[in-house]
Order: sequence, then C-alpha cells, then structure tokens
Amino acid sequence: MNETGRISVGIVGASGYGGVQLVRLLMEHPGVEIVYLGGDSSAGKPFSDLYPHLAHAVNLQIEPVDVEAIAKRCQVVFLSLPNGLAYQLAPTLLEKGCKVLDLSADYRFSNLETYKSWYGGSRCDKEVAATAVYGLPELYRERIKQAQLVGCPGCYPTASLLALSPLLKQGLIVPETAIIDAKSGTSGGGRQAKTHLLLAEADNSVAAYNVARHRHTPEIEAICSELAGHDVFVQFTPHLMPMVRGILSTVYATLRDPGLVREDLITIYSAFYRNAPWVKILPPGVYPQTKWACGTNLCYIGVEVDPRTARVIVMSAIDNLIKGQAGQAIQCLNLMMGWDETLGLPAISFYP
Amino acid sequence: MNETGRISVGIVGASGYGGVQLVRLLMEHPGVEIVYLGGDSSAGKPFSDLYPHLAHAVNLQIEPVDVEAIAKRCQVVFLSLPNGLAYQLAPTLLEKGCKVLDLSADYRFSNLETYKSWYGGSRCDKEVAATAVYGLPELYRERIKQAQLVGCPGCYPTASLLALSPLLKQGLIVPETAIIDAKSGTSGGGRQAKTHLLLAEADNSVAAYNVARHRHTPEIEAICSELAGHDVFVQFTPHLMPMVRGILSTVYATLRDPGLVREDLITIYSAFYRNAPWVKILPPGVYPQTKWACGTNLCYIGVEVDPRTARVIVMSAIDNLIKGQAGQAIQCLNLMMGWDETLGLPAISFYP
Amino acid sequence: MNETGRISVGIVGASGYGGVQLVRLLMEHPGVEIVYLGGDSSAGKPFSDLYPHLAHAVNLQIEPVDVEAIAKRCQVVFLSLPNGLAYQLAPTLLEKGCKVLDLSADYRFSNLETYKSWYGGSRCDKEVAATAVYGLPELYRERIKQAQLVGCPGCYPTASLLALSPLLKQGLIVPETAIIDAKSGTSGGGRQAKTHLLLAEADNSVAAYNVARHRHTPEIEAICSELAGHDVFVQFTPHLMPMVRGILSTVYATLRDPGLVREDLITIYSAFYRNAPWVKILPPGVYPQTKWACGTNLCYIGVEVDPRTARVIVMSAIDNLIKGQAGQAIQCLNLMMGWDETLGLPAISFYP
Amino acid sequence: MNETGRISVGIVGASGYGGVQLVRLLMEHPGVEIVYLGGDSSAGKPFSDLYPHLAHAVNLQIEPVDVEAIAKRCQVVFLSLPNGLAYQLAPTLLEKGCKVLDLSADYRFSNLETYKSWYGGSRCDKEVAATAVYGLPELYRERIKQAQLVGCPGCYPTASLLALSPLLKQGLIVPETAIIDAKSGTSGGGRQAKTHLLLAEADNSVAAYNVARHRHTPEIEAICSELAGHDVFVQFTPHLMPMVRGILSTVYATLRDPGLVREDLITIYSAFYRNAPWVKILPPGVYPQTKWACGTNLCYIGVEVDPRTARVIVMSAIDNLIKGQAGQAIQCLNLMMGWDETLGLPAISFYP
Repeated sequence: MNETGRISVGIVGASGYGGVQLVRLLMEHPGVEIVYLGGDSSAGKPFSDLYPHLAHAVNLQIEPVDVEAIAKRCQVVFLSLPNGLAYQLAPTLLEKGCKVLDLSADYRFSNLETYKSWYGGSRCDKEVAATAVYGLPELYRERIKQAQLVGCPGCYPTASLLALSPLLKQGLIVPETAIIDAKSGTSGGGRQAKTHLLLAEADNSVAAYNVARHRHTPEIEAICSELAGHDVFVQFTPHLMPMVRGILSTVYATLRDPGLVREDLITIYSAFYRNAPWVKILPPGVYPQTKWACGTNLCYIGVEVDPRTARVIVMSAIDNLIKGQAGQAIQCLNLMMGWDETLGLPAISFYP
Repeated sequence: MNETGRISVGIVGASGYGGVQLVRLLMEHPGVEIVYLGGDSSAGKPFSDLYPHLAHAVNLQIEPVDVEAIAKRCQVVFLSLPNGLAYQLAPTLLEKGCKVLDLSADYRFSNLETYKSWYGGSRCDKEVAATAVYGLPELYRERIKQAQLVGCPGCYPTASLLALSPLLKQGLIVPETAIIDAKSGTSGGGRQAKTHLLLAEADNSVAAYNVARHRHTPEIEAICSELAGHDVFVQFTPHLMPMVRGILSTVYATLRDPGLVREDLITIYSAFYRNAPWVKILPPGVYPQTKWACGTNLCYIGVEVDPRTARVIVMSAIDNLIKGQAGQAIQCLNLMMGWDETLGLPAISFYP
Repeated sequence: MNETGRISVGIVGASGYGGVQLVRLLMEHPGVEIVYLGGDSSAGKPFSDLYPHLAHAVNLQIEPVDVEAIAKRCQVVFLSLPNGLAYQLAPTLLEKGCKVLDLSADYRFSNLETYKSWYGGSRCDKEVAATAVYGLPELYRERIKQAQLVGCPGCYPTASLLALSPLLKQGLIVPETAIIDAKSGTSGGGRQAKTHLLLAEADNSVAAYNVARHRHTPEIEAICSELAGHDVFVQFTPHLMPMVRGILSTVYATLRDPGLVREDLITIYSAFYRNAPWVKILPPGVYPQTKWACGTNLCYIGVEVDPRTARVIVMSAIDNLIKGQAGQAIQCLNLMMGWDETLGLPAISFYP
Repeated sequence: MNETGRISVGIVGASGYGGVQLVRLLMEHPGVEIVYLGGDSSAGKPFSDLYPHLAHAVNLQIEPVDVEAIAKRCQVVFLSLPNGLAYQLAPTLLEKGCKVLDLSADYRFSNLETYKSWYGGSRCDKEVAATAVYGLPELYRERIKQAQLVGCPGCYPTASLLALSPLLKQGLIVPETAIIDAKSGTSGGGRQAKTHLLLAEADNSVAAYNVARHRHTPEIEAICSELAGHDVFVQFTPHLMPMVRGILSTVYATLRDPGLVREDLITIYSAFYRNAPWVKILPPGVYPQTKWACGTNLCYIGVEVDPRTARVIVMSAIDNLIKGQAGQAIQCLNLMMGWDETLGLPAISFYP
C-alpha cells in the first residue's frame, strides 16, 4: 500500500483501448493508485499526447517496459498487450510478488497445447500458467479470490459464456446444438490502424469474419466443456457491427426438455446469477440492447423459448471494453484484494 | 403502351421508402413511364415536397387512391402499402386488366389461413389470392413470367431463402436444424416516425426483436417446406443494426453428409444460381458485406463449412430496399413483361 | 433534508432525454435523493418501462403532475418540460419554498418581450421571471448561489457562450463579426418520434436547419449584448450531425488587434476560466472533439488565430445532454446548495 | 477509339477511393472502355482482390505504372495519386498525345509558387503546368473543352466555390468577409489506414482540423481572387463528420447591398447556373442535405439571407467522391471529348 492507503498499480500496454479503459476506470477506483504506465512505441510520451481529453485527469508519462522496475513500484500489474507478450513478463512479476492480471489470451488456457495450436509460439512457463485462473468471476469467483495470476477472458467469451453457462451447468440443453452468433463494435479490433476498421469501410455495413475459425472459439469451448462435463464443440460466428462499442451474443440451443417455457428459464437464470451483481436478467419479452451496457460493467441477459422449435434463444449484451475487457479485470482485482466485487466500477450507462 | 413506347406504371403508396425506391428505380428504367403516384395522407402534395432532392427529376403529384382511375391510366400497378390494404385494391385492378405487383404481405401466402393467423383481417379474395405468384424470381422465374398478380417477398425472406434454397432443394441439410440470424438496417422499419428507430435510440446499438414470433417466419417456412417436401419450422431471429440499409442473413444448418467441404458447396451454389443474374456466389473465404449490395439489386452469398461441427454457415447480403423490396418487384415486372431480368436495375454499388 | 441527510429532489418531465439524464446523474449524486418523477402521458408507469436498462437502479413510478404534492415532498424541483409549461408551475413551487431549476426556455430571458416574440404565449409571471438567474455558472456563479429560480441555458447557447465570452468580455473582437456555426447530435431533438430524426433519415447526412431563425439566437444575443455592453446581433447556424450526443460550436470573429497570436488568446482563455472546473482550455494546435466531452459535464475549448485574416476561431465541445442540459442544471444546484461545483458530476468520458 | 467505338481509358492509382469511384462510374459510361488500371503496391493483383464486390463487373489486373505502355494503350489517362506524383507522369503522357485528368493538387495552380509553398517539392514542368485548366466546369467550361490537361479541383474547393462564385462574380458580397465552414465525411481521407479515421475514433464525434492552414485554402483563394478581380483571403475551416461520404459547405458573407432578400439571391443563383446541369438551386427555405447528393454528380445549393446581420448564408452539398472527385473528372472528360456534360454520370441518389 502506498502513502494514500491505496494499492499501487501499473499498466503495461497503456496506449491501446484496453489501456485507456483501465486508466479511466482505475482513476475513479477508490482502492488503487496508478503509479506506472508502460508502453513500447509510445515510451517517453505523456499519456495525454495519446488521449488529449485526459490531460486534466492523468499526469503520467508512458515509460519503457522494465520488469524489475515495474515490480519494485507496483503491487498489481495489468498486462494489456498483444497475444504472446504477457507470458514473457508475467513469471518475473509473479516471482517478485506482484499480482498480475493479463488481458491477452496468454493465460486463458489451462491446456497450453490448445493455446499453442491457435496462437502459436513456444511456452516455457508451464508451471506459472498452471497457477492462472480464468477471470470470469461469475463462474470462478472463489478461485479468483485466491489467485495471484488471472487470465482475463476475451470479450466474445464473456458475453457468450454468461449466456450459455446456466444452460450447460444445469444440463438443460443438448450442448452440441449450441450456436453463438455474436455481433461486436469495431473497438474490439483495437487502436491500430487497419483498413477494414476505417469508418469509411465499416460504417453502414455488417459482415461476418473468421467464420468457423475465430481464436475465441477454443476459449469458449474449454469452459463449455468443463460445464457440460464432456468435450463440446460450439459454433461461434463473430460479426463486425457499424458501431464503436458493445457486443451482443445471440445464442441458440435445443432444450432437452421441450416443455420448459420462457418463465422457467428466467427463474433459472435469475437463481444462477443471484449473487452476481454485474449480471441482470431481463423480464419476459425484454431483449437487451448493447447500448444499455455501454459505459458499464454490466451484462444484460434476455431469454426466449420457441416452443415450435424447442429451442432456447439467449441474448447477452456487454460493453466489450468494460465487462468484456478492462472492467472485468478490475472486477477480478476487487475479488483478489478482498474488496466488494462492485468497487469502483460503473453501473449505469448514459442513455441515449 | 403509351406514346413513348413505354409501359404506363402507377405506384400506390409512393410516400414511403418502398415508394421512393420504386420511383427512383423506375425513373431510370427504359421500359416504363410512371404516370401515377398515389397516397392517402400526402394526396395533393407534389412528390418533391416529400423528397426535395428529387424535384429536378420527378414532376408528379401524389393523387388520391381511386382504383377506377388508376386502372384506366396504368398497365402495371405497384402496391406499396401497409399490410391489409392491397387485398382491397388488387381484385379490381386485376379485373380491369392491370398487372399488379404487391409489396406487402397480402399475396405472399398460398394458404390464406396462415396469412390470417399472423396478420389478422378477413379475406374474401380467396380466388384472386390463389392466382398470386410468390415473387422470388430465383425460385419461381417461370411462374412469374405467366403471372398477373405477384406477391413480392419480404426483405428478410429474400435474403434468407436465397441462402437456404440450394441446401433444401438438394437435400443437403437436416431442415429442422436451420437457424437464421438476420441483421437489418433501420430503413426496413419504414418512414413512419417511431421512437425506437430514432437515430438517438438506434445508433451505436444492436438488439434482437420479435424473437420467435416475427411475421416473416411463416413466409420463410412456407417456401422452405415446399423445397424440403415436408413441413419445416425454421428458427428466425431479426436484429436491428445501427445502419440505414442492408440485410445480412447468417444461416446455420447441419449437413447430412459431414464429408462435404466448402468448395463442394460453393460449386453447388454456383450451379444452382447459374442462371440467376442477381445472385453472386463469393469465392472461398470471402464473406459478404451488406455495403457491397447497397444501391444494387444483387444478393452476395458466402459459404463456409465447419468440419468440427458438421455445419454449413451461409451468409447472404442484400439491400433491403432494393433486392429486398422495390428492385425485386421490378425484376418480377421484367419477367412478367418478357424483358431481360436485369433491365433497368443497378448492378454496381457505390463504395465505400 | 430527508432521513438520509440528502436533499429531496423531484423531476417533472422525467420521460424525455433531459429527464433520464437527470435521473442518471442524480442517482450518483451524494447530496440528493430522487423522491418524485412526474410526467403526463407516462403517468402511472414504472420508470423502467420507459428505460428498461435502469430497472436495477431506479425503482420509481412516473406520477401525475400535482404541484401541491410536489412542493410537499421536494426541496428542489427540476422542470424538464417543453417550452411554455414551466411558467405555469414554477410560481407555485417557489411560493411553497422549493428551489426550482427550469431546463426549458421559460426563464432564460430577463426581457419577457424577447421570450414572447420567439416562443409566443402570454406571460403573467413577470415578477417571478425577474428573479430568475441565467444558469451558466461560468458567467453567473455568484448570482446562481443566491437564486431560488434558475433558467438553465439551452445546449447551443452553452457551447457558444463559453467560446465567445472571454472575447466579448475583454473587448478583443468586433462583436458584430461573430459567427457561430454549430453542430449537434440528434438527441438534442428529444425522444419524441419525428421523421427527420429517424436513423434512416439522419444517419450519414449533414444539413443546416432553422438558418437565421433558430430560437437559441436571442438567448445567445442577450448574453453577448450584456458582455459587450451594447446590443449585438450574432450569426447562429445550427446543423444536425449523424451522431447521438455532442455539440461543437465553431466560432469566428474579427480581432480588434490583429497582432494577437494564438498563444496570447490561450493565456487569456485560461485566465478567464481559471476558477471554472468544467472548462478545459486545450494547448496550441489541439482542437476539441465532441466525443471527448460525451458522458461528462466538461466543455473543451480550442483556440486558433488566422493571421492572414485577422480572425480568431474558437471551437467548443460539450455533451449536449450534460453540460448542455442536465449536468449544467446540477452544477447550478451544487452552487445553490453551497456545495462544491463539481459534486456528483462525471469528469472523464469513456473513450473511444 | 477502340474496336467498340469507345475511347480507351486508363486509371493510374486505381486502388484508392478515387480510383474505385472512377472504375465504378466509367464502367457505366457509354463512351469509354477501361483498358488499364495502374498501381504501385497493388501491382499484379486482380482489382477484385481490393474490391471483391466488383469481381462480377471488373475483370482487370492492377499493372505497374509504365508511362510508355500507358500512353500506347490509352487515349485518356486519369491520374488518381497522392500529391506530387502526377507532375512526374503527366508531361510524358501529354507529349505522347494522351488527354490527362489529374485528381491531385499538382495541376490546380496557375501559380506554381503557390503550389510549392503549400505542397513542397520542386517543379520543372512549368510549361506543361501552364497549359493545365482548372477542372471546375461550372466556371471554366469553355477552357476545359479545349484542354489536353485538366487539374481537377479538390472536394472542398468544389463545394465551396460553387457556393461562392455567383456572389463574387456579381460583386454581391464583401469578399474579405467570406467564411467557409465545411463538413466532410471521412472517405475524403482516403483508404490508407490512419488511426483518427478508424470507426472507433471518428464515429459519434465531430471536430475541426487543419484550422487556418488546410491545403485547399490557396486553391479556393486563387479562384475567388480571379472572380473578385483582386486578391482575396477566405476563412476556410474543414471538419470531420461521422459519416462516409458527403461534404456540406456553409458559407457566410456580408452583402454589399443589405436590401437584397433571399428570393433575389435565389434568382441570381438560378440564372448563374442556368446552363449547369449538375447544380440544383433549392427553393426558399429548403437547405441541402449531403445525403441527397450521395451517389450522384449533383451539387445542391440552398440560399438564406439574414436581414438582421446583412449576411448571406449559402449551403452547398456534394458527394465528395463524385462531384468532389471522380464524377467531376468525368464531367470534364465529357467536355474535352465534345460529349454531353451529363453523359454517363448518375443524377439520382438512393434515399434514404
């Protein structure tokens, strides 16, 4: 703890959208103080050169990434880097006693073979990786509380797993029938300039991408398999939406018991998430809009049953950069520190 | 034929988006001349009061809807009205010898009981309705050529059926597994002012609506059942997108033969649509963007197979107001008149 | 003060965008408790029927507008109604001892003749109106502290006056040369369904409206005239932008002293707003983006000088629904209550 | 002329937005045939790799830029390249007998010193540059007809000059009072990936850029000075809009004769543009929306007078990529070839 009675926190990879979300949220978090912002290409620049609107609130410079120095100054480190970098930094940070929250894919897989087959690279941090907990508090709250290393879920898996978990856990669906049709704003693609994410290209258009081969698939499947008790393949199709933030996952699955009605399922979902302050189950006939969740750490879930087809349709909406990324990491930090799970996180969106 | 050697055409319901599309497209169609624009609340106004940008091109007034007068002046009549009105006008127009193209749901159902259970109303035009042909040229080209009355498909059914038809017709999928996750721009909701279609509400947000009960479901199912040879229920979920025009249908289904690969299906689709000038099958790994189709009568189709799940994923993109509405009606007119199917219809979008 | 030690607050006109902003902001304000939400057409409905995403946070019903009952329950009343209604409610509320903050145009004019010539109606509340203070804290902080009735500025005047005031107050420009080219998101038009505010109409398009006759003109001119010390006409042109929130005012004026450079003016602006926590003057060469201000009560101001033309160009960006409406009203409340001007108001936007 | 009786046309720089517009428009132009597409980084690729939606319509490869080969195959060459490249190609092409239309800034300036001071570079093509005609047909129709080399105007100058020209030419305004507040879609920034043009950055935001120093300023001033008969500085401020296409120029100027009313000016504008088929003067009280012009070569102009300030406000709307770029170049080509000025160019937008 530092002089202010707050935990000292560092962010490696502060220049991207994940980084700026963390900065923004942690600025208003009563339990922490940001003492370090790290980056590579932007090292040496004031943070406000990258985000001028924050000049009045953030008076920090981007510093080079020096693990020893970071460990000395920070009790907690958020790694917000491209895939494949965190596992080169985390082991040392952990050894020096830091708590580490990684926002990349590096520590999301208990099976490193799965990681390597989808992301490539060689991993010699097997033992460290084995200590990592998957940072989805609604499923792994107790483990996160004990963790020193948390691998925070991707944005798509968060939305999708919150929609699917009660069904799988309770054995209500035929797992193999699960289809996830996900829609994301373009900020999920990051701040790197890419042609297909230009406003001129992406506005007023909708398309699927990485059909049947998006890297979030194995992450979703690993957790689904654990919940189902056997290996499950799910169909996952991401789509790019002409909007900045937000993910909607529309999930389809065949009910084992075709007699279940919508209200039954809403009761089951409400019970499943009774102690989950960031999940809101909507009343019958109300379906979530991504905008409702934007600027908050909430996940809104709507449930429908089609008696004609014996399918359940679950829709979940989150802010991809908050509950889908930085906010969830902070929710995990709250648990790791023994704080209230909601501490310092926004719960009401600005609407419209 | 009028003095110009062109067919005289009238549009009833010219003030809405369907109407203005028809006007815009027919203005550039070499075979027709618009001689009548009809409307109710806007009767008496110059058309350019409603659409000032067309003042230089359209010098017509909206006139009251008088069936006798319309029939006298028009060889062909487009009905672009809310559901439930066309069937009060069409019988007389047909009797007087007009060809009629209805853009509402009134003449899309061979089974009027289905119509009444989804749309209400009482129908005493059973015999007339029995002569109506479903205006999807890619499936019913020959019948349309002979028709005097065409019930033009809805926007969602057009995109969805063009994606599903080859699979059902060839018996490649288990029909009951078909799931259609459709995404539409807000212009599909029409020009009537509705709160949820305000830019302030609909922009930067995505949500499903009418889940498991959208009125386009029975229309899709009727054709699917015909193609499959037995009654089929399909799962259809429409979503509102933060964009003006365009529909993307993402269709999922389980393959009967899990050995089929993507290239097989692309070959099958290409063959199925060999003589369909408005359907373009994309090469392997290319998925359609709605923007590609905007401002054209095209339907772009991309096909993917997921060997892990034995599912086919088909994505189809159209302009909801052209191939999904006015353009398709004109494509039908071309067939009814014995003209080339592509006559007067735009085939290249403006991009970006 | 109520049992919680908080001030009891009511909102009349809670169903619109002004209302929902007030609700959202006041929910997180530590000094107040919302005890009453009033509305006309929506009376009797739970507030969450109108805004389902707030169901978890707001458990209040819309009640009919009964002035006596409101005065009994509320120490402070926000009036968020169409123009012409507040002056029928405010006198009684004031008489009963309430503090009143009006978000409409009714109490923005010290000269009621100006009000009547632009807004119509007859006013018999002349004495009450004479006590109203114009709720722009950056100019009238001390008067607002003493006020019982505040007429909160319009969104355009807020952005425009914050940009112009230092120039006029210091006599730096020729007042008659002032031109305000303002750009607003569509939420400024309210939640009432209007055709031209539909996403299908307003998206991907830009246009001016009410050129040379927008009702915010006299409001801007009244304050400008006061600052200049003589009557001033300004050119004010509002434009509708294809976006939800935000106003950018680009202000042009001819400098009296063509030798002034950008840095001089930035110094002058910084001094002028030294004690204004909600105004941020940007460094040389940085121009405000509306998105920076969205979700906050901030006004960002950028200043440029064109030595070739001897003009100053000032750009100011605000969130039209916060600093341009509800946030500013709460800023005024803070002053009226003797609280810190920043209490309970958001200062950091979510970006992107 | 080639075998088809059409003029053979080449496009150098076909991969960008200017290039794809030219391709799209020239595909439907009855007088030309595209025989060559040239590019640098994309040489060797099929054009449809860059724009897959055009695969069915364009069967051409991008070829390396070899001036000799181009001149041999093409009668007309469009240069759609970054500034500073055209003047290295044009002299040879002209010498070999090609007609050349340059879409960059290279040949827009009769005074090369102005060019060099704003764009840099050294120019040794003074004699060639002296033969270039500024490609704004509404002002220089006759000269364009005779030209072999046309320097096509920028998008901002086109919108701005069409709005200002009648006022300057007729001496109706004090030229020094002219202020141009211009709003552009992001496609004006090209297809190169740049962070500030990402949808995540540019959507739902508005900002000015290059205030008092945008490179289109000298181009506007050169023509204004010619029209006014003496050197004129104009205030020009570009703004980035959250939309794909379109420019709106809002132009302010002080009338010499304050007695002029709106209707007078509309009459003057209508007369000025009597023979300009691509300019449409709107009736009193109607202001142009950019969307009206999108997908067309039209410029819509609305005129307002504010008698209180003695200013005229003129609003002009164009599609920045058509009338502001590729369409205008083709309009020039039509004149150079002795064809009708409207040949092959779209005149009706798709709305909404």
